[in-house]
Amino acid sequence: MTGAKKILNVGMIGSGFMGRCHANAFRSYGGLFGSPVTIRLHTLADIDQAQADKNARELGFEHATGDWRAVVEDPEIDIVSITAPNALHEEIALAAIEKGKVVYCEKPLSTTSSSAEKMMLAAEEAGVSTLVGFNFLRNPLIAVCREMIASGELGEIVSFRGRHAENYMCNPDLPHSFRTSTAGGGAVADIGSHIISMARYLLGDITEVSSVNRTVCQSRPLRPDSSERAPVEVDDLGHALVKFSSGVVGSLEANWMATGRTMDLSFEITGTKGALAFSQERMNELHIWEAGKSPGFDGFKKIEAGPDHFPYGHFCPAAGHHLGFNDLKVIEVAQLIDMMLEGEKNFTDFREGYRVQCTVDAIHRSASSGSWEKVSGL
Amino acid sequence: MTGAKKILNVGMIGSGFMGRCHANAFRSYGGLFGSPVTIRLHTLADIDQAQADKNARELGFEHATGDWRAVVEDPEIDIVSITAPNALHEEIALAAIEKGKVVYCEKPLSTTSSSAEKMMLAAEEAGVSTLVGFNFLRNPLIAVCREMIASGELGEIVSFRGRHAENYMCNPDLPHSFRTSTAGGGAVADIGSHIISMARYLLGDITEVSSVNRTVCQSRPLRPDSSERAPVEVDDLGHALVKFSSGVVGSLEANWMATGRTMDLSFEITGTKGALAFSQERMNELHIWEAGKSPGFDGFKKIEAGPDHFPYGHFCPAAGHHLGFNDLKVIEVAQLIDMMLEGEKNFTDFREGYRVQCTVDAIHRSASSGSWEKVSGL
Amino acid sequence: MTGAKKILNVGMIGSGFMGRCHANAFRSYGGLFGSPVTIRLHTLADIDQAQADKNARELGFEHATGDWRAVVEDPEIDIVSITAPNALHEEIALAAIEKGKVVYCEKPLSTTSSSAEKMMLAAEEAGVSTLVGFNFLRNPLIAVCREMIASGELGEIVSFRGRHAENYMCNPDLPHSFRTSTAGGGAVADIGSHIISMARYLLGDITEVSSVNRTVCQSRPLRPDSSERAPVEVDDLGHALVKFSSGVVGSLEANWMATGRTMDLSFEITGTKGALAFSQERMNELHIWEAGKSPGFDGFKKIEAGPDHFPYGHFCPAAGHHLGFNDLKVIEVAQLIDMMLEGEKNFTDFREGYRVQCTVDAIHRSASSGSWEKVSGL
Amino acid sequence: MTGAKKILNVGMIGSGFMGRCHANAFRSYGGLFGSPVTIRLHTLADIDQAQADKNARELGFEHATGDWRAVVEDPEIDIVSITAPNALHEEIALAAIEKGKVVYCEKPLSTTSSSAEKMMLAAEEAGVSTLVGFNFLRNPLIAVCREMIASGELGEIVSFRGRHAENYMCNPDLPHSFRTSTAGGGAVADIGSHIISMARYLLGDITEVSSVNRTVCQSRPLRPDSSERAPVEVDDLGHALVKFSSGVVGSLEANWMATGRTMDLSFEITGTKGALAFSQERMNELHIWEAGKSPGFDGFKKIEAGPDHFPYGHFCPAAGHHLGFNDLKVIEVAQLIDMMLEGEKNFTDFREGYRVQCTVDAIHRSASSGSWEKVSGL
Repeated sequence: MTGAKKILNVGMIGSGFMGRCHANAFRSYGGLFGSPVTIRLHTLADIDQAQADKNARELGFEHATGDWRAVVEDPEIDIVSITAPNALHEEIALAAIEKGKVVYCEKPLSTTSSSAEKMMLAAEEAGVSTLVGFNFLRNPLIAVCREMIASGELGEIVSFRGRHAENYMCNPDLPHSFRTSTAGGGAVADIGSHIISMARYLLGDITEVSSVNRTVCQSRPLRPDSSERAPVEVDDLGHALVKFSSGVVGSLEANWMATGRTMDLSFEITGTKGALAFSQERMNELHIWEAGKSPGFDGFKKIEAGPDHFPYGHFCPAAGHHLGFNDLKVIEVAQLIDMMLEGEKNFTDFREGYRVQCTVDAIHRSASSGSWEKVSGL
Repeated sequence: MTGAKKILNVGMIGSGFMGRCHANAFRSYGGLFGSPVTIRLHTLADIDQAQADKNARELGFEHATGDWRAVVEDPEIDIVSITAPNALHEEIALAAIEKGKVVYCEKPLSTTSSSAEKMMLAAEEAGVSTLVGFNFLRNPLIAVCREMIASGELGEIVSFRGRHAENYMCNPDLPHSFRTSTAGGGAVADIGSHIISMARYLLGDITEVSSVNRTVCQSRPLRPDSSERAPVEVDDLGHALVKFSSGVVGSLEANWMATGRTMDLSFEITGTKGALAFSQERMNELHIWEAGKSPGFDGFKKIEAGPDHFPYGHFCPAAGHHLGFNDLKVIEVAQLIDMMLEGEKNFTDFREGYRVQCTVDAIHRSASSGSWEKVSGL
Repeated sequence: MTGAKKILNVGMIGSGFMGRCHANAFRSYGGLFGSPVTIRLHTLADIDQAQADKNARELGFEHATGDWRAVVEDPEIDIVSITAPNALHEEIALAAIEKGKVVYCEKPLSTTSSSAEKMMLAAEEAGVSTLVGFNFLRNPLIAVCREMIASGELGEIVSFRGRHAENYMCNPDLPHSFRTSTAGGGAVADIGSHIISMARYLLGDITEVSSVNRTVCQSRPLRPDSSERAPVEVDDLGHALVKFSSGVVGSLEANWMATGRTMDLSFEITGTKGALAFSQERMNELHIWEAGKSPGFDGFKKIEAGPDHFPYGHFCPAAGHHLGFNDLKVIEVAQLIDMMLEGEKNFTDFREGYRVQCTVDAIHRSASSGSWEKVSGL
Repeated sequence: MTGAKKILNVGMIGSGFMGRCHANAFRSYGGLFGSPVTIRLHTLADIDQAQADKNARELGFEHATGDWRAVVEDPEIDIVSITAPNALHEEIALAAIEKGKVVYCEKPLSTTSSSAEKMMLAAEEAGVSTLVGFNFLRNPLIAVCREMIASGELGEIVSFRGRHAENYMCNPDLPHSFRTSTAGGGAVADIGSHIISMARYLLGDITEVSSVNRTVCQSRPLRPDSSERAPVEVDDLGHALVKFSSGVVGSLEANWMATGRTMDLSFEITGTKGALAFSQERMNELHIWEAGKSPGFDGFKKIEAGPDHFPYGHFCPAAGHHLGFNDLKVIEVAQLIDMMLEGEKNFTDFREGYRVQCTVDAIHRSASSGSWEKVSGL
């Protein structure tokens, strides 16, 4: 009875926080978007067969494997969703690209920008469609921001002030992990990348940066439940000045020991005729400054997300009813499918993922050199 | 490979706003909750076979029918989900109860409290499990409120001030519909029921009410695109004083012509030692008043929903990442499944749905009589 | 050098919280408003000569007396400012009226509405100018509200929801005082009068009320440091439904045991084309709902008080710099002087003070009778 | 009758925005603080005798002069209050210091740091008490911040993020003035100095900065109503990275073309055990992050200014009633008098004013050099 709907088979590698989020998004997409395609959760690859079996059952995949190569090589699979540890992204993606799969990779694209560059070049050479999971950009209200900026209704944009602050590393007894690895770890790489991608999405290339970083927690346990501690060699927080190619100047902060902040991915963008203020802490609200009907009636207006902000209406026909974090991933999947059906590239393709990492690199370089550093790779 | 998981077959009747929301919740539940059961979207019944076919495809049901009795009578089906127009709830529910199905019915339970009573009695007599879709009660932060009140840490609760205000009927050219039908229509019945159910969930029985209602929009088009208008005979807004069996006194408002409000289901609950303030407009925040470490440090503390507030962690392992409106329905489905697996009744069974309607009735009676009215059915 | 400026001599009776506030306002007025008159703090009357001497020195009065009649009878004195205990208002005011003084009386006008009526009639018969200290009405943003409502730009006003909630009586060991006297005490009289006066100022006469009151703290110490307790016979909190002569319906609350609230004199006013939301907790902000330039851009706009909102500019030439509580009293004094210089009556004259008390009375009657009660005195 | 109170005579030079604010503060201080001294508004100096006469009358000064030297040289005068244009501060202050007056000077101390240094050295050599008008530091809630930081209850402070953003120069047709003079003009000097002084007050010396500035409005009219325009050579906005001697790192922004912001002097201070968030936009609120009684109950708590926060109680005995901008200046005057009576130095003496200017200088140098610059003068 499902008729002539085209079926797209998804193979997913990894089943942590983001894997579960991807799986939920794939499951939810069809019913919410009334899509012409049917998404089939085809195969889950996990660290071993037992884990894969268990998680496939939970997440609704039809097949399970302990070998990710089985996913990449399965001719039935259309989309390879990579939610494995960052250090594996390159190898998996290159293999998937070689097989011509659409590659949907969690951020960061890889642990180094040179690795990310390799992935980007391979994808572009192979003509393969790619998408990096910068989910916060999928918020319908962020689309509103982008359109308002592009339309010129805010006048010339002159200043940017952004931040991604969370508190998930505040506990000094959290052990080392990929997050604290010198290959790709640290707050700037981990969550700074979110505010960088947001800034780039809204305002274009960041060309130059000056930064200061700090390692607050000087040592952490080597492993969970280990009493042995090893030094932390990555930043816990960083502040950077940024110059955009458009002439906008500003600052951004990344901080994963931001006591009291759970999701302060926030920005204020100032134009000569208007301004925008947004925080992911209240992700269903956008504050837009508007001139008033007469003096004394200027002010920031609180816009609540609603069906006038595409694609909110696919989730709910009534304004003010709130999208949640997981819904952003559903929208990301919808963009992935649109990309496949309509042959257009998504803003956050591998090239964009690479450029975000080049911006992270420049911030790291500047923190070491004490000088302004140009962002490469643009 | 899906192993020995128990399968629960869902038959759903109706596919509007709430039908889509139910379908999405059933699809999402398993992957998020790692349930021991598998939910199968078995059959969708809609107004005719063509509609049912189309919507079943979109929403992921395996079968489709233009006759809701086929759902109720299908021995394979375990759960009957009723999202059909309110006027049909009774007939469908009674038929489903007769067949021993678990009945999951959207609110309001029916168009009149006597009809709701009939449904309740039938279900109780048959020993059938029931659940009414008061989704806003599923918010993990509302559970926090309930526990705090029950624990006594707020002292004696003395005052309640609540409201459900939206703007979806502001346009005077919106036509008549079931919402404006004298059988069960009006703002108090439609959304007042939400703040009534919230008040009852947190503070117990409302025993007596005094109210004033108003019909703002005196006439509406008979049908969409009709130029003929007919008088509106239901309330557009109502304010009521309420007395609880516990001695708490307060007020509540229902208003569907509340210019500027999209989802202000809000309350402030005052105890002798603490207070709670919540609005669905910022559904991931709860404001709890706490005494300070020393004078000058008292204040309302903003709590953000997180994995410490069950079952938020099933959606996301990190605090502050936001549940959305649709997630509340997933939690409702999880409660439905728990009810079935563990044999416990849910707070919002048909008896509760009936009592909410009795409270609505008393508000209507008081608006007419100009006197305090006792709530029946308690 | 002070030239030909007219001098107005102030005699003040009482020097508590409000007395100090009056004195500060009189001192500040001239410099801020650049007035054509000079205000002279002529004489302070207090409970005895010693107190009067001490407080006159502190507050800057030139003379001091232990006998309030000396103030009323002093031919030099133009304005009699009454901040004495409520129970003395009538006697003082009648004496001052008899001497033809301008009478500036703190709210409530008196302890009973019949007493207030006597004062009002005496003043009107004598043709004496009067002003009652409803300071919250002096907020420049409240003037904005009044103008917007009167202009019709919010459409027809249909609903009102107001409140005055504070926590200053939360401590059950606070002793009895005039506040808990059955002559004029209780939360509804004490602070309910503020939200009543606000509602009347913005929306006109409240004609009918239904209410429920509650005494939370059943007994209090007879006197400070007394271990003997006596029953409390006044309300600690009250909720009322209100009908306005204009057809607006709504509710209001008065609560002086509102844990967590220090100054929540707040309201939301709903019109068919716009809405206003205000709380004294953020007295320099007004939230105005406005339709947007296109769908999806509607919202509440936050207006910050500034020089476009008269008479803010007399305090500061720059917007957003905040008026404080004491500044409201300076504006009240400016209105008093304007009244004297221009011969116009102020909105909050004794007649208005009387009508506010009649509204309080009706709420009290309704709480006793359990019926809707008409407001007399309109 | 004013008894044996000590009289302090104030001579004020200038009567613009800040002059009026000073005068109001001097008038209000005694009555609010119940001071052992009486402040006498002795003489106002203005640009000519006519202006001085007019303004003295309005502001309540007893004498008036068109020659500021008359103030400085008057042996009766104890305090010289300098609110004249910045370019005159040095000459006036040096003359007043020579005469041994207490000097109360508006910020910035002077137009250049070398001039400020000269003033500081002269005052210190002469042993004269000085105070610079950094009024925002007088907020009782800022004192709470300072104490919390100093006490260690927030743990080690690790990050600072601050800003002073206003919109008063947004209009590109505002003419040149002292604000746009290359001697001391620009947003960083004008309002950046406020957030710098705040940062220094709370966290100590800023030792090194990296910055980027921008001139948004490239030309302005030479004079009001002039059609001739001249280039703007000062910054309209600047962002800076800052390192504190304590090891704290962070960023700050100054922006006087911040569309939509009227008084966003704001900061977030992050410690390892707590955090503080404040904005002058809501100057009566402080948000303090506190760990909860149990997991899930952490959060930012909103503290409202009240009598527990000295010296709020001098303005009002009840919490939540709001201080305003002008009240901050009254507190500043109270600190000035305390300094004189108790012989203690105030934090914001001329040395502090000088150091703030050195910090501004370093930001300017860094914007030019493109390098980190050390702050001199510490």
